[in-house]
Amino acid sequence: MIGLDQIREIVSSTPSKIVLLVIDGLGGLPHPETGRTELESARTPNLDRLAKEGICGMIDPVGPGITPGSAPSHLALFGYDPLKFTVGRGVLEALGIDFELKEGDVAARGNFCTIDGSGLITDRRAGRLSTERCSELCRLLDGMNIEGVAIFVSPVREHRFVVVFRGEGFLSALDDSDPQREGLPPKDVIAHSPRAEKAASIANEFIATARATLAERYPANMVLLRGFAHYPDFPKMSEVFSLKPAAIAPYPMYRGLAKVVGMEVLPTGATIGEEFATLAHHYNSYDFFFLHVKETDIAGEDGDFKRKVRVIEEVDRALPRLIDLDPAVIIVTADHSTPAVLKGHSWHPVPFLLCSKWCRPEGVAEFSERACINGVLGRFPATDVMPLALANALKLKKFGA
Amino acid sequence: MIGLDQIREIVSSTPSKIVLLVIDGLGGLPHPETGRTELESARTPNLDRLAKEGICGMIDPVGPGITPGSAPSHLALFGYDPLKFTVGRGVLEALGIDFELKEGDVAARGNFCTIDGSGLITDRRAGRLSTERCSELCRLLDGMNIEGVAIFVSPVREHRFVVVFRGEGFLSALDDSDPQREGLPPKDVIAHSPRAEKAASIANEFIATARATLAERYPANMVLLRGFAHYPDFPKMSEVFSLKPAAIAPYPMYRGLAKVVGMEVLPTGATIGEEFATLAHHYNSYDFFFLHVKETDIAGEDGDFKRKVRVIEEVDRALPRLIDLDPAVIIVTADHSTPAVLKGHSWHPVPFLLCSKWCRPEGVAEFSERACINGVLGRFPATDVMPLALANALKLKKFGA
Repeated sequence: MIGLDQIREIVSSTPSKIVLLVIDGLGGLPHPETGRTELESARTPNLDRLAKEGICGMIDPVGPGITPGSAPSHLALFGYDPLKFTVGRGVLEALGIDFELKEGDVAARGNFCTIDGSGLITDRRAGRLSTERCSELCRLLDGMNIEGVAIFVSPVREHRFVVVFRGEGFLSALDDSDPQREGLPPKDVIAHSPRAEKAASIANEFIATARATLAERYPANMVLLRGFAHYPDFPKMSEVFSLKPAAIAPYPMYRGLAKVVGMEVLPTGATIGEEFATLAHHYNSYDFFFLHVKETDIAGEDGDFKRKVRVIEEVDRALPRLIDLDPAVIIVTADHSTPAVLKGHSWHPVPFLLCSKWCRPEGVAEFSERACINGVLGRFPATDVMPLALANALKLKKFGA
Repeated sequence: MIGLDQIREIVSSTPSKIVLLVIDGLGGLPHPETGRTELESARTPNLDRLAKEGICGMIDPVGPGITPGSAPSHLALFGYDPLKFTVGRGVLEALGIDFELKEGDVAARGNFCTIDGSGLITDRRAGRLSTERCSELCRLLDGMNIEGVAIFVSPVREHRFVVVFRGEGFLSALDDSDPQREGLPPKDVIAHSPRAEKAASIANEFIATARATLAERYPANMVLLRGFAHYPDFPKMSEVFSLKPAAIAPYPMYRGLAKVVGMEVLPTGATIGEEFATLAHHYNSYDFFFLHVKETDIAGEDGDFKRKVRVIEEVDRALPRLIDLDPAVIIVTADHSTPAVLKGHSWHPVPFLLCSKWCRPEGVAEFSERACINGVLGRFPATDVMPLALANALKLKKFGA
């Protein structure tokens, strides 16, 4: 695989535009009665037309057999090796609630929990308190400042919150305070390296202050922290691909992942129609668009085969608005499969199509898992998507002389 | 490629079972008269049915164009990168005669040879003495103990034997004593590193003692050693894949390779029928089975196209006994190709099928080299086999969040 440093050397900025449409969890498995997957069941004349006029294949988001989470699968589509560019749990939690992380920030996942008189954990989730109550408690802890490190505490859902440490040289090489078991006391936060010791002492002071603050708030009388992670300092798409990229994504997590690689996140309505309208509205201002449709994945996770089919058909009906913009490259694919029959993400390769004036179509007749197998691209890793997109947009110069 | 350390993080033990059937040297080339390979010539209704109900592809055991030996090709199927996890020649020779190697052992290949009065080698093979004579001579040398290092000498065939050094800190970083040419004296064993110097002196003392012992045994009056190698300390399949693996293999080499990755080697009869009976007998006690059929490879090496076809048909007839056990995942493939027309291992990719409830079949109509090309898996490295097997047995959790 060609590395980002090598791509950077051969890419040049041009006016040509690339649209990457990610239909989350698009890949599926056959319905037991019909033998057809969700995509094979949906009526998709526009996708089929793009498949005919373009080139097809099947992508492995992270690797054969590997079921990816949202972060590695999207980073791979954005051209970043997901085994090398990893995003820590705490940061993902913060991205998922649209927290505005800055470079240098360290985020951790937090739980409100219950401890007894001798300090042992009796309930790691404090009785799964309500999200409303969680918000009230977060307001009590939010805004601390310990030795120049500003601390932000934001609710996620029920007993879960995010804590963000912002200060010079705050390091993420810290162990969890959450022992992951009841009947034990919360652990002290321990530094993985001498350089992280100041960070550990600040994290422990935050926990001690939180404990004092929450003393009368039974059952939520203590906090547990885990997954300390730095906001990643990845090279930006503008630097490595010479692109001016924008993201259209109604869900916080995907906006956050787009920001990590330097995309401009566009304000958008949440429906599929509104997303395509946002694309049209901003079309002249950027040369790369990541457009994310979430509802297919949700229907898959819910095990709702029919709803997933309907969402796919809705995307198909909206497609002419994208096609009419006539970008140099249209890519339609997914971050991973979410078969309704499995009710969750899966490892199955994902259908992929790329349509451009220069793509040497191979005559795949429709856009489906089984038709894409016979596409010219065969089965390939998702990290190849960006080089293919750039090449077909005529943005890549010769490699070597 | 995802590494063993990354797989280890996402794998969990479940009751679901995986059977990996390796038909040694299965891949072939067309018969000059019929244009069909061995597999395409064989009548294989059961394999064809599995191909239809499963997913297919072609594997490269080590890499495109690379003809693998048995060790790298099997290690790749077991999930170990064969370019990284290497087994030295001396160890392979010992595994091939079922010598019970222990961790820390160093093994070398030995030849009985002939030297003249001035110590120059006149015949590197001592006139290719009989295996029986070789055994007698090995008994003379077996059981030496030099400075606390126990030394075992076992016959292989004709002039060839294995020597195993067992002792604290015996190192394998030693050069051969075999100059690979006649007319030269045997070389002193030289250490590659200062830490191996004691080992070199023990090896040289063994050689000197052997020379004295064999002085009157012309033409076998000297020994040559080469391929010093440590018994490899690979991570075990139980550690990296959370499996309880068992091997069913009548040939020593394959039993030995299975042991290297921590499989339990089951006692078994040598016929294909007996091997499948062994599988059924132990089916409840393990969750991963490696079942090895050797006769296809032997027929290929002998250039016996028809016999190879017959063996494939015999495997096919035995298959229902495996299918009836209803494992979560059945894989049928080979370690490499052994086309009868080439009379040896070859570099050609190998047909592969995987059958599971969750595999999204693509409708390949039969199990053959040419049909598998159109399988959804395309052409892929053998090291992907284990992740695919684990995924389809629902043993892998999400990678990343």
